[in-house]
Amino acid sequence: MERLPGFRDFYPEPPPAPSVWSAAARAFLFAKWRETARLYGFQEYDGPPLESLDLYKLKSGGEIVRQLYNFTDKGGREVALRPEMTPTLARMVAAAERGYKKPLKWFSIPQLFRYERQQKGRLREHFQFNADILGERDPGADAEMIALLIDTLRAFGLEAADFVIRLSSRQVWEAFYRRRGGDEARAYEFFQAVDKLERESEEASAKRFEELGFKLDQVRDFIESSEVSEDLAPIMEQLAARGLQDFVRVDYGVIRGLAYYTGPVYEAFDRQGKFRAIAGGGRYDNLIALISRGKVRLPALGFGMGDVVLTELLKERGLLPNLQPVLDVFVLVEDEAFRAESLRLVQGLREAGVATDYGLAPAKSDRQYKLALSRGARFTLRLVSAPDGRVRLKVKKPAQRTEEEIKPVDAVDFIKNQLQLEKGPSLRGEE
Amino acid sequence: MERLPGFRDFYPEPPPAPSVWSAAARAFLFAKWRETARLYGFQEYDGPPLESLDLYKLKSGGEIVRQLYNFTDKGGREVALRPEMTPTLARMVAAAERGYKKPLKWFSIPQLFRYERQQKGRLREHFQFNADILGERDPGADAEMIALLIDTLRAFGLEAADFVIRLSSRQVWEAFYRRRGGDEARAYEFFQAVDKLERESEEASAKRFEELGFKLDQVRDFIESSEVSEDLAPIMEQLAARGLQDFVRVDYGVIRGLAYYTGPVYEAFDRQGKFRAIAGGGRYDNLIALISRGKVRLPALGFGMGDVVLTELLKERGLLPNLQPVLDVFVLVEDEAFRAESLRLVQGLREAGVATDYGLAPAKSDRQYKLALSRGARFTLRLVSAPDGRVRLKVKKPAQRTEEEIKPVDAVDFIKNQLQLEKGPSLRGEE
Repeated sequence: MERLPGFRDFYPEPPPAPSVWSAAARAFLFAKWRETARLYGFQEYDGPPLESLDLYKLKSGGEIVRQLYNFTDKGGREVALRPEMTPTLARMVAAAERGYKKPLKWFSIPQLFRYERQQKGRLREHFQFNADILGERDPGADAEMIALLIDTLRAFGLEAADFVIRLSSRQVWEAFYRRRGGDEARAYEFFQAVDKLERESEEASAKRFEELGFKLDQVRDFIESSEVSEDLAPIMEQLAARGLQDFVRVDYGVIRGLAYYTGPVYEAFDRQGKFRAIAGGGRYDNLIALISRGKVRLPALGFGMGDVVLTELLKERGLLPNLQPVLDVFVLVEDEAFRAESLRLVQGLREAGVATDYGLAPAKSDRQYKLALSRGARFTLRLVSAPDGRVRLKVKKPAQRTEEEIKPVDAVDFIKNQLQLEKGPSLRGEE
Repeated sequence: MERLPGFRDFYPEPPPAPSVWSAAARAFLFAKWRETARLYGFQEYDGPPLESLDLYKLKSGGEIVRQLYNFTDKGGREVALRPEMTPTLARMVAAAERGYKKPLKWFSIPQLFRYERQQKGRLREHFQFNADILGERDPGADAEMIALLIDTLRAFGLEAADFVIRLSSRQVWEAFYRRRGGDEARAYEFFQAVDKLERESEEASAKRFEELGFKLDQVRDFIESSEVSEDLAPIMEQLAARGLQDFVRVDYGVIRGLAYYTGPVYEAFDRQGKFRAIAGGGRYDNLIALISRGKVRLPALGFGMGDVVLTELLKERGLLPNLQPVLDVFVLVEDEAFRAESLRLVQGLREAGVATDYGLAPAKSDRQYKLALSRGARFTLRLVSAPDGRVRLKVKKPAQRTEEEIKPVDAVDFIKNQLQLEKGPSLRGEE
């Protein structure tokens, strides 16, 4: 039995091979995403992984529809595994926006799916941090989104030397296209040609532009000029006011592939150029009206950041922390006569909030001790008969040779006290 | 645009209607599940939501296969959205168990899918807390799983008066069936009839048993006798040693619907009998060998607890906490001359770990203040010109009338100090 190609399993630490995905690393990413979103005042939402195919047909460029994981369900409905979160968000907001004060600041961490022709190592699913602001037309909202993107990456230890946000504008590109006499009906084709410029051969790009009545050089010259346009200037100013100017530059080489963007757009790249884009987003002021068939009009903007490129980048920069399992206490049951009392001890520790494991079944002390080590236990405990006939508890830190002896009744207080001392400031909320 | 029938959206607080699912309530459930699993020394894993159809055909009773959300993908593969987690777990463990010390203690919180004929209010997806122990044959492992189930429900504030674990045994039922001359090949049909006994009419059940050569009364008498069998006695003993005897009773009215169980099985019910089972599980010692086609043999056991019944139960008992959004600080930008300095302030607070929102765009002070209240801000801050021409920061707790005035440069220290005082013990890890 094999898993489907393009899908991932997430294993507990330590994963059985370096290429295997780690559930703890995923949890580390999700926790940082949630923490940064919370610092910025964003609230979490989620929708179903399966949606009506219409939701994507309605708004997406051909690009995404060709890659949909779609099928007909047993009830005859045309459905698709969600390839991106924005249409779901637009649907949810259109249905319920009246209950919330504007602007909405919402985020989600959906798993997304694309059915692409099988390429080696190419995944068919990934997780994506999605953050959006809805109901705010002011460029202050664009600056806030970009600041969130920057601070999310900084939360992982990435710095201005590691990544840059390339900021561009659909409005600027639309003006360029119109000014040079581009055919209005083919504007999106033109944007896609710009989007592909850095990933396609010179020949292929030249041909695309020629078909649209443009010369490749003309487009390139415009990209190289990259002046700060009127719509981008206030965003750059507000980012500078936050001290984030070193993380962003205006660069019309970016335009984003999706059809629905209407204003400022941007992508985050590692400065060494080793990886695909780390994140991307922009403003899409017309999508909510489109999805709600004109019932709700709300300006909107947001970005998505996938887990795959980010994990690769963090690994390469040595920024994934030690994710080994950590356990507070392992209780060794060396003598079956003490099993009931050991279980009482285990229960008492857990009820006091101490993460505790123990020898589930009769086994040699040595084997139990090795298991305790592999679980990352901070302390091992074992009940023994003292020479006076009373029961005593031996406490050991695996890293040290010596054992302390205490009364079983003192176990919970003793361990809680020790853990507090060990963890130090972290238990007092100082990180 | 509507969401698909049987699927749920999860909205930020406050959800637009009481019947709408809350993302914060879901996060509350997940956090408690993870916390209890951690206390018991379980590690998290996950697998893909889409698997080969074969994975379920191989091992499940007809019951589950009829309800699969299955389809043929664009590559001609027969696939299914996962209806339960155990086959995925078995596949993952069979592929990689050699890298881990036994017993494995693994948990996951997958979203699961079933395509059932549309019934009012019947969902086609839910989230399920799955915990399993692999590699341990001793009844100590069964007791540990049941203790985890009990303590998970207790973590939500549910007590012995609220719920009970009904503990049964496939072995006991097999012995009964064999002893009364049941046809070996139809044993699973018999188990399913027992499983349906409490949900079907007397007539339907009587007919089922008759076809298998049994009388309904015969089965009922056996269930009512519910003696503690040899395989269940050590489990009951170990639960009693932990002080958990009031949460569990032997009850052969439970047998579990799935084909693969081999030993002790159990379900958790609310004592008032208002809801379907809250959780269920048992021992399935042959499944790993089946999934791995005999390559790996590992005894295994586990349970699943869904989010839907649990949420309904917690709501009914008033055990869902206040989930309103909480924000540390909202910065009011009343004078656009202070926008840049306000942004600097916002950035400084966030970098210090203070959850901060602000007036994104020029707006009346009153409107910003109302937004701050709806965001649950603990403090509002606003920059003002003092009579001496210097810039000052006004700090206000929305609950109080008075404002304090401080120097902008002291803002971060002041707020961090205030938040520490406010949160009190929780910041020092005492909960």
